[in-house]
Amino acid sequence: MEKYIHKVQYYETDQMGITHHSNYIRWMEEARVAFLDATGWGYQRIEKEGIISPVLSVDGKYKRTTTFGDEVAIVVRAKSFNGLRLVLEYEMTDEKTGELCFIGTSEHCFLNRDFKVLRLKKDYPEIYEIFASMV
Amino acid sequence: MEKYIHKVQYYETDQMGITHHSNYIRWMEEARVAFLDATGWGYQRIEKEGIISPVLSVDGKYKRTTTFGDEVAIVVRAKSFNGLRLVLEYEMTDEKTGELCFIGTSEHCFLNRDFKVLRLKKDYPEIYEIFASMV
Amino acid sequence: MEKYIHKVQYYETDQMGITHHSNYIRWMEEARVAFLDATGWGYQRIEKEGIISPVLSVDGKYKRTTTFGDEVAIVVRAKSFNGLRLVLEYEMTDEKTGELCFIGTSEHCFLNRDFKVLRLKKDYPEIYEIFASMV
Amino acid sequence: MEKYIHKVQYYETDQMGITHHSNYIRWMEEARVAFLDATGWGYQRIEKEGIISPVLSVDGKYKRTTTFGDEVAIVVRAKSFNGLRLVLEYEMTDEKTGELCFIGTSEHCFLNRDFKVLRLKKDYPEIYEIFASMV
Repeated sequence: MEKYIHKVQYYETDQMGITHHSNYIRWMEEARVAFLDATGWGYQRIEKEGIISPVLSVDGKYKRTTTFGDEVAIVVRAKSFNGLRLVLEYEMTDEKTGELCFIGTSEHCFLNRDFKVLRLKKDYPEIYEIFASMV
Repeated sequence: MEKYIHKVQYYETDQMGITHHSNYIRWMEEARVAFLDATGWGYQRIEKEGIISPVLSVDGKYKRTTTFGDEVAIVVRAKSFNGLRLVLEYEMTDEKTGELCFIGTSEHCFLNRDFKVLRLKKDYPEIYEIFASMV
Repeated sequence: MEKYIHKVQYYETDQMGITHHSNYIRWMEEARVAFLDATGWGYQRIEKEGIISPVLSVDGKYKRTTTFGDEVAIVVRAKSFNGLRLVLEYEMTDEKTGELCFIGTSEHCFLNRDFKVLRLKKDYPEIYEIFASMV
Repeated sequence: MEKYIHKVQYYETDQMGITHHSNYIRWMEEARVAFLDATGWGYQRIEKEGIISPVLSVDGKYKRTTTFGDEVAIVVRAKSFNGLRLVLEYEMTDEKTGELCFIGTSEHCFLNRDFKVLRLKKDYPEIYEIFASMV
């Protein structure tokens, strides 16, 4: 996947004059959506299949502040996938200077509409193959 | 209904050092939820009946800024209701000083799960009577 | 100004399965930022000059729902400007179908760092000329 | 500190029908504000002293979903403090059932207005004593 660019919005700043830290968690999602779209199994297609994919955990380290108007380049990588859980890594840099702003990870599982855990290898082998090949 | 109190959060401020204006639209919803709960036909009960109630329009006038830590007192009043559309009015004041911060209105209709317009008088006379009595 | 495109994010949806109505107010700001940037007097340059420009009022009419993944095309037009107040109009359409989703307006004034009202014609004639020429 | 209660708002839900995961990071801040207020050195007093306290890292584990109308009880504890960095822990439970929803931590440093790192023991011994006594 190409890097995903998020331009910091005025409404994402806080009274410290910088981007509020909670927004990086949202940008992780924005970049994840683009990353999964690029695999051919984006959120929309997955949800149409009746699969929901809740977030199990997130973490992030803030390396450098960003603020209104900054362009943040986000690169997503699949760190691990065992058919039950997918772990993604995120690296955010200032698009202009290349300086590192943020690194984070998120962990996801896959449920059917009754909130039962899916084993993708058995239940959706096509998705399993694609996600397994990303790591 | 009693006034609804919203305490301004840090994440609701922007780099101007004041509450970002978009949050007042969200506080209108917070107060509306409490207002409808008090009638016995809150959002949760309405949605359980299979009724959804989208927003048709909103407007707001910003009279005085608020910022982190301020307590905003919100009073909601039903302005009009004709069985198809409900119009609500909001007045927000600084809880400490009593000064007016914001006035706004919102307009709502009622749909079934297939997004067909409901005529509450015929389809849900109990809800119709309660909403009509609020005006 | 070219139309501004906002792609609806997952975190902008609500449990009705559609974009939460408060986000359109934020998209108005996103498009306004791009619109003013295109005049050469964007928010960043204005704030560097020591001018802040709070929102005096907003209104919006929701014409058609949008949801996750939709691309919303936003066109901004200056409706009026008298040196004290600037009124902007917004039209949002579904980029794919061209269908109208939302129309809105916002009203802005200009203050110095001490929150005193500026008369742009006298205080910042260069900005006055540019904003006056937009209408 | 007493537990802090956050009632889940409609605008905090997403199309999965549950609270969007990014909001828990915001609730951590809400509870942290109340926690620090209770020590006598809340954000407002700290910022008035010229101290800003950015977030260095956050992490969270989602144990059970919450949704619109749920009351979430948040307990904050100071995990460590060395004069330079404060680590806080958060435990969120469903107020009605007592079930665990979320656990998280956040890490904070202290800067002066020029973004230079402060050593609270030397620079603000009163704050140092209070924060040290929390652990």
